[in-house]
Amino acid sequence: MRAVREGFVRFKLLAEKPKTYAVIFETGDELASGLCAFATKEKLSGSSFKAIGAFSQVKLAWFDWQEKKYKPSVVLDEQVELVSLIGDIALSDGKPQVHAHVVVAKRDGTALGGHLQEACVRPTCEVILTENPGNLQRQVDPESGLALIRP
Amino acid sequence: MRAVREGFVRFKLLAEKPKTYAVIFETGDELASGLCAFATKEKLSGSSFKAIGAFSQVKLAWFDWQEKKYKPSVVLDEQVELVSLIGDIALSDGKPQVHAHVVVAKRDGTALGGHLQEACVRPTCEVILTENPGNLQRQVDPESGLALIRP
Amino acid sequence: MRAVREGFVRFKLLAEKPKTYAVIFETGDELASGLCAFATKEKLSGSSFKAIGAFSQVKLAWFDWQEKKYKPSVVLDEQVELVSLIGDIALSDGKPQVHAHVVVAKRDGTALGGHLQEACVRPTCEVILTENPGNLQRQVDPESGLALIRP
Repeated sequence: MRAVREGFVRFKLLAEKPKTYAVIFETGDELASGLCAFATKEKLSGSSFKAIGAFSQVKLAWFDWQEKKYKPSVVLDEQVELVSLIGDIALSDGKPQVHAHVVVAKRDGTALGGHLQEACVRPTCEVILTENPGNLQRQVDPESGLALIRP
Repeated sequence: MRAVREGFVRFKLLAEKPKTYAVIFETGDELASGLCAFATKEKLSGSSFKAIGAFSQVKLAWFDWQEKKYKPSVVLDEQVELVSLIGDIALSDGKPQVHAHVVVAKRDGTALGGHLQEACVRPTCEVILTENPGNLQRQVDPESGLALIRP
Repeated sequence: MRAVREGFVRFKLLAEKPKTYAVIFETGDELASGLCAFATKEKLSGSSFKAIGAFSQVKLAWFDWQEKKYKPSVVLDEQVELVSLIGDIALSDGKPQVHAHVVVAKRDGTALGGHLQEACVRPTCEVILTENPGNLQRQVDPESGLALIRP
């Protein structure tokens, strides 16, 4: 999947207190890298977001607790509704890190979900994101190997 | 399905900054038209909402990219949990337009999802909606034929 | 499932207006009782929240309209992604009551959902919760027997 158009993400600041953005992705945008690019550009450090839209392709993952790594769980190359995207942004080693989970629905309504790895938007993904004054920090959890929020 | 009781939607303004509403639907209310009626009544132009509840009937759709139109994907006439409703409200030709995606769960837990077309609430649907100072505008996208948010 | 460590829930207040918390659960925490404990501790009376994470065990329910009671719908004893948790907190007889609906995804991406009864977190559950100035009240609905929000 191609990345979001370099240096370009359409967004609008909807409110100052709390800082609330509409971030709008378009046909062909890759969502995971686009969210990271936006977080970096806006220096986000304590955000929460939700979104709906649709994808032409999507790759999701499931965390394998035995092997302590993400495994591919959903790999679709077909038009699906993005019925739920929920996520947050926290700092990890001083850089914004996006964590997002997805539910998609196929043409027969079947719902599939997982940890967002890649998704090609078609025709839109409408993200509403709130950045808080307080930030969130991730630290590597020795047991799982994952960088988890430690408030 | 019958429409929401004419001119009547139960709601409470929970906060002024940002403007946050609880909008509560009851047994027999049709949700899609009810959300539209509320948006029109309150002149909403840049909202985001989420909800949980339960339905006695629901019709969802999937966007067919080849034919560029919504096709019915889920048509249920049974009690389901509304496990996720996420949506936004933007202006289209100066009027508030509601866009909402749904995930429902059947008695065996099977999850189905899609674009909300109609849903008959039973016994409740608890919507928390935030209206932002900045508004959102939809414009028809020539490729898909859909009115998409253009920030 | 064991309860959340007595008197201990990790959280951070991210914003004062509106009051926004990150509430972070860890491996072994039981989510439903943990959310209740947090709501009681912080005296929450008009909250809305969303979360993502993962569980090692989960029990969800479906409301049986004929019998007017919740029936078990999903009982899993395996690692699943928590792809969506949406909920609210309202007062019922003067005490905070949590209402939460869940969608989980299995290793093959299959999504299942329902009303949260119990869930054992592994390794994290990241809840972002906003408490509003205005409160919400639940009252028993004679038809369903459920305590529903009455704004």
